[in-house]
Amino acid sequence: MPKRPEYIGQGRLVVSALALTCGFAVSATGQSADIIHDAEHYVLAAQHGDKWAMEDADIQEKLAALEAKHGTKPNIIHIMWDDTAVGEIGIPEIQSVRGFETPNFNQMADEGINFMRMYTEPACTPTRAAFQTGRYAVRSGMHTVSFPVEYSGIDADEVMIAEVLSDVGYKTAFFGKWHLGDTEESYAHNQGYDEAFFTPYNQVPSMWTPQAEVGNVITGLYPDLYGEDRYAMDDSWQPNGYVWTLEGTKGGETNEWGPPPDITNFWDVETEAQQRTLAFIDKSVEANEPFFIAYHPISTAFMPDPRSSTKLTANKNILAEALVKIDAFVGDLFVHLDERGISDNTLVIVMADNGPFTHFGPRGMVETLYTGGKGDFSEGGVRVPAIAKWEGVIAPDQIVGDILHVSDLFTTFARIGGAMDGIPTDRVIDGVDQTSLFMNGDGFSRRDYVMIYQGPNLAAGVKGRFKRDWKNATQGLSLDEFYDLYTDPREANGEMIEQFHVKSMFNRQRARHELWMEQYPNRPDATPGPALTGIANERPETRKLYTAPADLEGLPFTPEQVGNFPIPFRASDM
Amino acid sequence: MPKRPEYIGQGRLVVSALALTCGFAVSATGQSADIIHDAEHYVLAAQHGDKWAMEDADIQEKLAALEAKHGTKPNIIHIMWDDTAVGEIGIPEIQSVRGFETPNFNQMADEGINFMRMYTEPACTPTRAAFQTGRYAVRSGMHTVSFPVEYSGIDADEVMIAEVLSDVGYKTAFFGKWHLGDTEESYAHNQGYDEAFFTPYNQVPSMWTPQAEVGNVITGLYPDLYGEDRYAMDDSWQPNGYVWTLEGTKGGETNEWGPPPDITNFWDVETEAQQRTLAFIDKSVEANEPFFIAYHPISTAFMPDPRSSTKLTANKNILAEALVKIDAFVGDLFVHLDERGISDNTLVIVMADNGPFTHFGPRGMVETLYTGGKGDFSEGGVRVPAIAKWEGVIAPDQIVGDILHVSDLFTTFARIGGAMDGIPTDRVIDGVDQTSLFMNGDGFSRRDYVMIYQGPNLAAGVKGRFKRDWKNATQGLSLDEFYDLYTDPREANGEMIEQFHVKSMFNRQRARHELWMEQYPNRPDATPGPALTGIANERPETRKLYTAPADLEGLPFTPEQVGNFPIPFRASDM
Repeated sequence: MPKRPEYIGQGRLVVSALALTCGFAVSATGQSADIIHDAEHYVLAAQHGDKWAMEDADIQEKLAALEAKHGTKPNIIHIMWDDTAVGEIGIPEIQSVRGFETPNFNQMADEGINFMRMYTEPACTPTRAAFQTGRYAVRSGMHTVSFPVEYSGIDADEVMIAEVLSDVGYKTAFFGKWHLGDTEESYAHNQGYDEAFFTPYNQVPSMWTPQAEVGNVITGLYPDLYGEDRYAMDDSWQPNGYVWTLEGTKGGETNEWGPPPDITNFWDVETEAQQRTLAFIDKSVEANEPFFIAYHPISTAFMPDPRSSTKLTANKNILAEALVKIDAFVGDLFVHLDERGISDNTLVIVMADNGPFTHFGPRGMVETLYTGGKGDFSEGGVRVPAIAKWEGVIAPDQIVGDILHVSDLFTTFARIGGAMDGIPTDRVIDGVDQTSLFMNGDGFSRRDYVMIYQGPNLAAGVKGRFKRDWKNATQGLSLDEFYDLYTDPREANGEMIEQFHVKSMFNRQRARHELWMEQYPNRPDATPGPALTGIANERPETRKLYTAPADLEGLPFTPEQVGNFPIPFRASDM
Repeated sequence: MPKRPEYIGQGRLVVSALALTCGFAVSATGQSADIIHDAEHYVLAAQHGDKWAMEDADIQEKLAALEAKHGTKPNIIHIMWDDTAVGEIGIPEIQSVRGFETPNFNQMADEGINFMRMYTEPACTPTRAAFQTGRYAVRSGMHTVSFPVEYSGIDADEVMIAEVLSDVGYKTAFFGKWHLGDTEESYAHNQGYDEAFFTPYNQVPSMWTPQAEVGNVITGLYPDLYGEDRYAMDDSWQPNGYVWTLEGTKGGETNEWGPPPDITNFWDVETEAQQRTLAFIDKSVEANEPFFIAYHPISTAFMPDPRSSTKLTANKNILAEALVKIDAFVGDLFVHLDERGISDNTLVIVMADNGPFTHFGPRGMVETLYTGGKGDFSEGGVRVPAIAKWEGVIAPDQIVGDILHVSDLFTTFARIGGAMDGIPTDRVIDGVDQTSLFMNGDGFSRRDYVMIYQGPNLAAGVKGRFKRDWKNATQGLSLDEFYDLYTDPREANGEMIEQFHVKSMFNRQRARHELWMEQYPNRPDATPGPALTGIANERPETRKLYTAPADLEGLPFTPEQVGNFPIPFRASDM
């Protein structure tokens, strides 16, 4: 594996000294005092730290009582799928408008918290990286969506939530869409998960098939659909031999699962992931060990279900049809938890990874409340549906208007699992501990800000009701780049004079944020490496595809030379 | 009063004969068999008439049982205000996004029906005319928003819901924004209401004041704010002497209420209307007579409340601030009904008159779920929040996705009041009887279509999930003028090939609709007449304004000549 510079840890001593002089211990238990948060956090901690410490003391008591009652730490199930706007689940009035119903998701909202301001990154890979690491994707270099073949992935030195929870005794599993690279170090079971069944890429490999064209999804992407081209000179530009799903266990071997990717087996991956989720619960319950499962469905985007000849919804498009199927699984899941007697010791959170795929995506993925979709820094790109339920711990029927960010789940899960000590303290952890918000409800967030990156660039900043568009700022004069998200949730009318009272606040917020980045530098990009190595049952065409054109003789450059050369915009900004 | 042609009734004989040959009696009670509906209705009646008749028989039994129980017919309260998008009330998740809360409206939704597809006309005057007459505004000529001085109004020959209900013993009252013209015949108490306290215009007169400019609402509209203009030649172009509120009783005199219009008394009108609403309830209860009250608030648009130094909402804009105040009144109203013991004999329906005032309106009126606002034929212009509650009759906690139209309330109120015989049978009544929808809930609408007019022109048609944009249709070839409202509720992506299967249906629907208009012609415009006559306490400056320039000598034309001359686009399309 190529040698690379140490991006993490070099500013540590300087900042730790600073931290000591500021004295910002924010936890009553001391567990999180050493975590380096984003700079903005300390501004809030200075104002609310005493209150938070009191809340934390109370939370620790509750968690201890729960563990005493159940004999294990709480179980955690995280379900996150693609490209869904706020309101597509959990708001039946909007579903009435949209022509479909998800009764189980909606019941979850009735029995738990419906988060109205869950922020993510604008696209798949970045959000998934932020979830797994508790860090804005820009920090881990995973700021850009990965496509096959990527020859890079998330770094081994990034610390995943599975690692943190494993260290305190959790059984951990990942099932579904991984999308964090194709290097061997990036595989889910090499990143801390005990058990993994995962797609290293997004759904694209299954679309490069004749069936996908028949399904009118994306056309012309597989070889047999190109007509004879007598000028074609280079076979290596034909998509063939792609890998769709891998499976493996921590420390064990890696295998490709199922037949080569195909629209007909696209949904089999979903079914398999669901079955493994239920089976993993059973194994953990039998072993009396707490579990953490990330089940990340693949089926809300890109392709209709070829097994269904009958539509389930009046809406009838891909997203709605898939959501009602995932909804049915969520219903089964809660029955399963009830039957195993662990509903009151299991936190379940469901959410999307970013806004709807409105740009170039399938029909029926559209704006509703917010402007923009996947890839955008407007609210429509980064604000997603999210519902949490935990019987007896989370009070029912809550609509929570506080801001939280997908990275907060990392820290919150660590707090709930009693694993705060496992959070690395040599890098910035953006995720703040939101256990108080989960347990105490509306108004108890520890975050009023989000920095929204598109790829490696800061595109916008949110602070409470205020939003600033950094990307389109007019050089030399601030114009209408400010938004009031209550007044104008669709960001249709930029304001100038009305919000100049927050201009300098935004300036200083950004300065603090970037000062901290100087102290704790980002990885500039996903970590390069050879693609999809270490697959025990590797197909010959896969090897050929992933090493092309290294099988050609007489090239004046090596694959490693090319792979390590930084490629700007290596993938689209999708 | 000027003589005008008879627009109504001339096609009656022809159509009645046609009706007989079709045999479309749709009511089990025979009460509505003679009503002439829009042509599209008969297509549905032919398919569902038998089912409707059975439902109607059941409804009649229920209504008879209710009357036997309570000793009077049911009371009806209709509350309708300006310029509010679907979701601004009754969907707390969207209110979380918007930074305000209306607990009483939301509780109404929990205890009744939250209608997700209540259609109105695109603007104030047309919607109010459709509500009062049960007819698309284009039929009564009230298709265009009225502004002072209009010299025209709704025709005396139009039959208002108050007339229909009065005939069967209801006490009727109108309080608030009337906006149906400034001719004496158009006054609310001259159109069937026993008691009226009303603004003949919209909120504009109060904005032509210095205070309104201080309120940063609309500037430069009152005389003292114009600087000296030495070229000014015509005093009659200065706004002065406007009338804001009138009051009167059926057959009694008309008086101007309160001081001249002013931003400081803008909210006094609201308070007065609310007090009169409660007082009218008490009078009716004491007399043991059923009542119908239309309370149409004025305060959601145009001007902030000058009495409030403290904002009630995080949103802090005009709409949100006014909605929470109306919400508080709605809470008081339900307490009042409970205290009078009539909650289970009173239907209350609350709604907006059209979409948000996004074009040139005050801040904070914005798109949320739908594209467009007031004046537009897109869903954002014509789809409004609407909630109905009737303890013991309407089942609680219903989200209803059926289409209904504001004109349906006319016919539905007549059915509930046992007044179907009072509905005129010499003209088209667009309103269909939706009592079954109110009583039986989701799926029981008798309408799957809406014809959307902008002014006198058919702009779009809705049929279930399908929508056709007639206004922007490409001549000679249909292009992307079709929308699927489930897939694309914001009408962002017009479709072509996908919806050509409904093209000829839309064509035939329009042909039927226009055939019917040929049989039953529309009034071409609001009925002209002198403005604001018959005011007992008339101010001299008012008389001067409303007769200008008739006070000048030597003009070669009379006020009547000018007033009767048809003026295309006499008011803006607002």
